[in-house]
Amino acid sequence: MSRLSSLDDLRALIADLPKGDNAASAAIDKKQFRLTKPQGSLGRLEGLVAWLGRWQGSAEPKLDRVDVVVFAGNHGIVAQDVSAYPATVTAQMVANFERGGAAINQLCKASGARLKVLALKLDQPTTDFTVDPAMSEREFVETVSLGFAALPQEADLVCFGEMGIGNTTVASALAAALFGGDGARWAGRGTGVDDAGLMRKSAAIDAGLKRHHYALSDPLQTARRLGGREFAAILGAVLAARQHNVPVLLDGFAATAAAAPLARLAADALDHTKIAHCSAEAGHRGLCQQLGKRPILDLDMRLGEATGAALAVPVLRAALACYYGMATFEEANVDERS
Amino acid sequence: MSRLSSLDDLRALIADLPKGDNAASAAIDKKQFRLTKPQGSLGRLEGLVAWLGRWQGSAEPKLDRVDVVVFAGNHGIVAQDVSAYPATVTAQMVANFERGGAAINQLCKASGARLKVLALKLDQPTTDFTVDPAMSEREFVETVSLGFAALPQEADLVCFGEMGIGNTTVASALAAALFGGDGARWAGRGTGVDDAGLMRKSAAIDAGLKRHHYALSDPLQTARRLGGREFAAILGAVLAARQHNVPVLLDGFAATAAAAPLARLAADALDHTKIAHCSAEAGHRGLCQQLGKRPILDLDMRLGEATGAALAVPVLRAALACYYGMATFEEANVDERS
Repeated sequence: MSRLSSLDDLRALIADLPKGDNAASAAIDKKQFRLTKPQGSLGRLEGLVAWLGRWQGSAEPKLDRVDVVVFAGNHGIVAQDVSAYPATVTAQMVANFERGGAAINQLCKASGARLKVLALKLDQPTTDFTVDPAMSEREFVETVSLGFAALPQEADLVCFGEMGIGNTTVASALAAALFGGDGARWAGRGTGVDDAGLMRKSAAIDAGLKRHHYALSDPLQTARRLGGREFAAILGAVLAARQHNVPVLLDGFAATAAAAPLARLAADALDHTKIAHCSAEAGHRGLCQQLGKRPILDLDMRLGEATGAALAVPVLRAALACYYGMATFEEANVDERS
Repeated sequence: MSRLSSLDDLRALIADLPKGDNAASAAIDKKQFRLTKPQGSLGRLEGLVAWLGRWQGSAEPKLDRVDVVVFAGNHGIVAQDVSAYPATVTAQMVANFERGGAAINQLCKASGARLKVLALKLDQPTTDFTVDPAMSEREFVETVSLGFAALPQEADLVCFGEMGIGNTTVASALAAALFGGDGARWAGRGTGVDDAGLMRKSAAIDAGLKRHHYALSDPLQTARRLGGREFAAILGAVLAARQHNVPVLLDGFAATAAAAPLARLAADALDHTKIAHCSAEAGHRGLCQQLGKRPILDLDMRLGEATGAALAVPVLRAALACYYGMATFEEANVDERS
């Protein structure tokens, strides 16, 4: 199911997603109950092991191979002067990724993850969404397909992140269209715009909502009209991971917004994903709440690049280390509750 | 300054703590400003690097050697039936640590940290504080000294944790005495007491506050009368770390409560410490707020053993990886703010 040629193909895919292996997660919970600790005292670590098992389809989840994929795109909306940095920085940062000089390179090394960077037609920014749809239907579906096909082979876990000057404006527009509220509610300072820049971001979002209002009841039209290439690719990659039993860590605001249309189409569509880190970008906390998802980490980061996701990988590794390494009460001759 | 023979020696030590190397942290901040990311966008990671530098006394902080020390003690207060587990479990868990079967063993391995466990006279529980002071002055000072001397040699970072059946009642009593409020405010379910057990905990704390009320304006008397051996040892070890340029990760509720008397004696006494994880134990979040400290992680754990601290070590390693590995704007030819 990697050939998507229309929005209807995509809708059909989303309507029929695998449900995960509840027997695997139940077996994991049963084992965790016997380990030498008060029941539940490893908190979210226990739930993360069960989650990995459910979506890998195994009571013996593993993290032998963890992949990070960063999708990069450029955005017509930068014409509205919404970013503190020029659009040239997108390609320059991709080059920085390729030379190993960015934060995500260091974090992948520290977390034992492989990094893949996919630059998506950086020389052809999407259309300014205040004027016209960001992408044609064909372009949108092709980019979703590209993301779908980009899922790394044999990954046990995949982290999705992004790079794209202007894309916090895009993410805010998507959040507003999907969950209500205006530009002022969802816009934040991104890479560091001043007050006037923040007002331009809000105004651009409001203009986009107005321009496309008649079509925004459809989450896929929202993704096409207000989104961007890296967003469409992440949407496709999240679907591919679901099809191939690969749990997903979503990075920050933009990555979450990219996947959010799926949750509006099917309530359980993001159950195989965790949000790795709550971004300091203004809209992210509210978006996580709308999705009913609590991020694993909350460290005031706002960099994107999948940095928050890579940083959460050691938490998952630690959870598995406890699951596999701890003695049971019987093995350790530890008395149980009195 | 490892010979402490009286409470006055201890007071003198606390009144004259090293202040940390602000030049080192300023140099670190200056370098971080040039790295290829929007300023401040690595959030708390940036502050953690500067903090390590300040307290290691170097603009090139390192984590080559990370030590975890778990202090274990037994408590007379268990006579008030305040724990879901029998006191025999303290020694059994120490044996489990020594055989490598506990959560902390796995987390130390996952974090590249060395583990040392110090069992403190487990066969001689402290006195039930509802009746008499938990420790004599001599015993208290000796245990603080033992903790002081237990600081691992040549550690770049040290994590302190504890094991002791009954010790969430002790931690709650300390928090109440140091920051106000009664047993009901500070008591939680610990390893899992039921409602009746929770009421017994509150009542025991209230009885302790009443029994020792005339002496509780002195934080060291509070630590002696309501505390326990693992608490006194952590207090001493935290002081030793300050003296020897070693930043500290405090684990959870009990470890934080153990160090808290220092903050009541000198406002900056815990500046070389971070609270690693916000425990799910009821009193911890409020205690962190009283200390003005935001934990690094918040994962609903409530196990102690230094597990939360060991889990935060990879976050610090990741922060250093970014600091040392990232390119500057100049090196990467990335345009700056427009």
